[in-house]
Amino acid sequence: MTGGSLKVLVTGASGFIARRCLEPLVRAGYDVHAVSSRAMRGDDVEVDARVRWHKVDLLDIPQIGPLISSIRPSHLLHAAWIATPGAFWASEKNVSWLLSSVELVRQFFVNGGTRALGVGTCAEYEWGKNDCREGLTPVLPSTPYGQCKAAACFALEAAAGLFQGTWAWARLFLPYGPGEPQSRLIPSVICALLRGDTVELSHGAQVRDFVYIDDVADALVKILSSNVRGAINVGSGVGLSLRDVVALITARLGGAGLVRFGARPTPAGDPARVVADIGRLERELGWQPAFTTEAGIDHTIAAWRARLV
Amino acid sequence: MTGGSLKVLVTGASGFIARRCLEPLVRAGYDVHAVSSRAMRGDDVEVDARVRWHKVDLLDIPQIGPLISSIRPSHLLHAAWIATPGAFWASEKNVSWLLSSVELVRQFFVNGGTRALGVGTCAEYEWGKNDCREGLTPVLPSTPYGQCKAAACFALEAAAGLFQGTWAWARLFLPYGPGEPQSRLIPSVICALLRGDTVELSHGAQVRDFVYIDDVADALVKILSSNVRGAINVGSGVGLSLRDVVALITARLGGAGLVRFGARPTPAGDPARVVADIGRLERELGWQPAFTTEAGIDHTIAAWRARLV
Repeated sequence: MTGGSLKVLVTGASGFIARRCLEPLVRAGYDVHAVSSRAMRGDDVEVDARVRWHKVDLLDIPQIGPLISSIRPSHLLHAAWIATPGAFWASEKNVSWLLSSVELVRQFFVNGGTRALGVGTCAEYEWGKNDCREGLTPVLPSTPYGQCKAAACFALEAAAGLFQGTWAWARLFLPYGPGEPQSRLIPSVICALLRGDTVELSHGAQVRDFVYIDDVADALVKILSSNVRGAINVGSGVGLSLRDVVALITARLGGAGLVRFGARPTPAGDPARVVADIGRLERELGWQPAFTTEAGIDHTIAAWRARLV
Repeated sequence: MTGGSLKVLVTGASGFIARRCLEPLVRAGYDVHAVSSRAMRGDDVEVDARVRWHKVDLLDIPQIGPLISSIRPSHLLHAAWIATPGAFWASEKNVSWLLSSVELVRQFFVNGGTRALGVGTCAEYEWGKNDCREGLTPVLPSTPYGQCKAAACFALEAAAGLFQGTWAWARLFLPYGPGEPQSRLIPSVICALLRGDTVELSHGAQVRDFVYIDDVADALVKILSSNVRGAINVGSGVGLSLRDVVALITARLGGAGLVRFGARPTPAGDPARVVADIGRLERELGWQPAFTTEAGIDHTIAAWRARLV
């Protein structure tokens, strides 16, 4: 990699996933251009002097072309999407983000971009008994979120092919860690127990692939900087039940009696097991998660303690 | 079906596929609104007084919302796409048509539409040895055309789901018949032989599923008027080699000696066999092609004779 020519545009840069990628991208030698619809404040996101911020709402499609032609990035890390906890599965904004993503990847390659990485989701897969594997597990999403992400993946592939660019599509499993919205599972349990409140959950036997945010950021930066092509899973490769994860939290914080499994109904269509096969990431990039779930939970608890105090 | 409430918007209405659907749609009781970027002339397309034409370029995205909100169709038959022979496989216009299609299906459902049928392609499938079957053959398109069509299919599914509409996606195999652009295989052979010219072709052993245009139109109208959901193949279910098809033409027109197989290189990635499994169409709609290949070729020859004389 020739440092001077590496210029990356990061979308969704104030969001949970992408903001954690900014510093690793700077370290990897990229000139980092971060896009967010939100104004950046010191208390809102780590403001790094080496990152140039662009306040642009990518859902305003006509703004995309001028943004990209003014920056002319060589690399694209496209993480922007609707992520409102709960609502994102079936929001009309999924279609809006698909439109935005199609225009974004087109403009990226039209303006001389060479390598794009999009952030996909395990929700693109048909969820079944086996670990999800790229090219083997059918892409059969059952939600507007998964469907629009799957559509964006095909759009990226088409745009890259048309303009002789290269592309990858990181299918993220369940990222967690500092910065995750408080209403999501792990933060909501941690915050409730830190306050001494009760927590109501569904049955808790669901097995999921939780992956620590710094591992996600590390994998994304490595994939972007590699020649890996196509869809690639980003997860821990380890399945834990929600009960397992909550037990890790109560082992640190106590309050096991405050957690009420079965108090909430199981969401319709909630699958028994969603776990990544991370063989591709291991084989092609020599990647392994650096954080055990225990370590990840410890860091997450520490971050919430600091915020709530 | 209650006749008064059936209003269909047909896109790509001056094109090979959709124009042949207009009359069957009128007969089926639809109030037919046809969209084309081209002005309609009597020599260009069958102008039916019962069809209302709207001259709109759907690639001009801001025009889509006003068009649909002024018509408020209950049904959508979306056939518009780039179809320039040869060029369509790898044209940048595929991305433009994907953008247009996403906005179109969103606006359709936003404006009260209830049932949408999109025109897909066999090029969405991974081409292999077996007949292509919905839900079984992987969706693994290798061209920008197939990729953008596959993306549009997911976008339609998402939009329908978000707005409680229903949808189907007709994966067309190789339609042929009167009105097909002259540079495509069957018309080019017929026209050359009618003129006494030589025809240069590749090896000709490729097996394809040719389906007569009136069968395609009939299937599309039946699918649109049904409750069939999701992707459904539209083909003859019969595989013929290009040599087989050319033999049917020379059996009528003579000139077998004018046809030179092997004179052209085989296109890169040209698959040995692309044939539809039409079991779904047969089982769920009791549909069978009405035209044998012999009859279809005869009608096609007659149409070109009339045009060339």
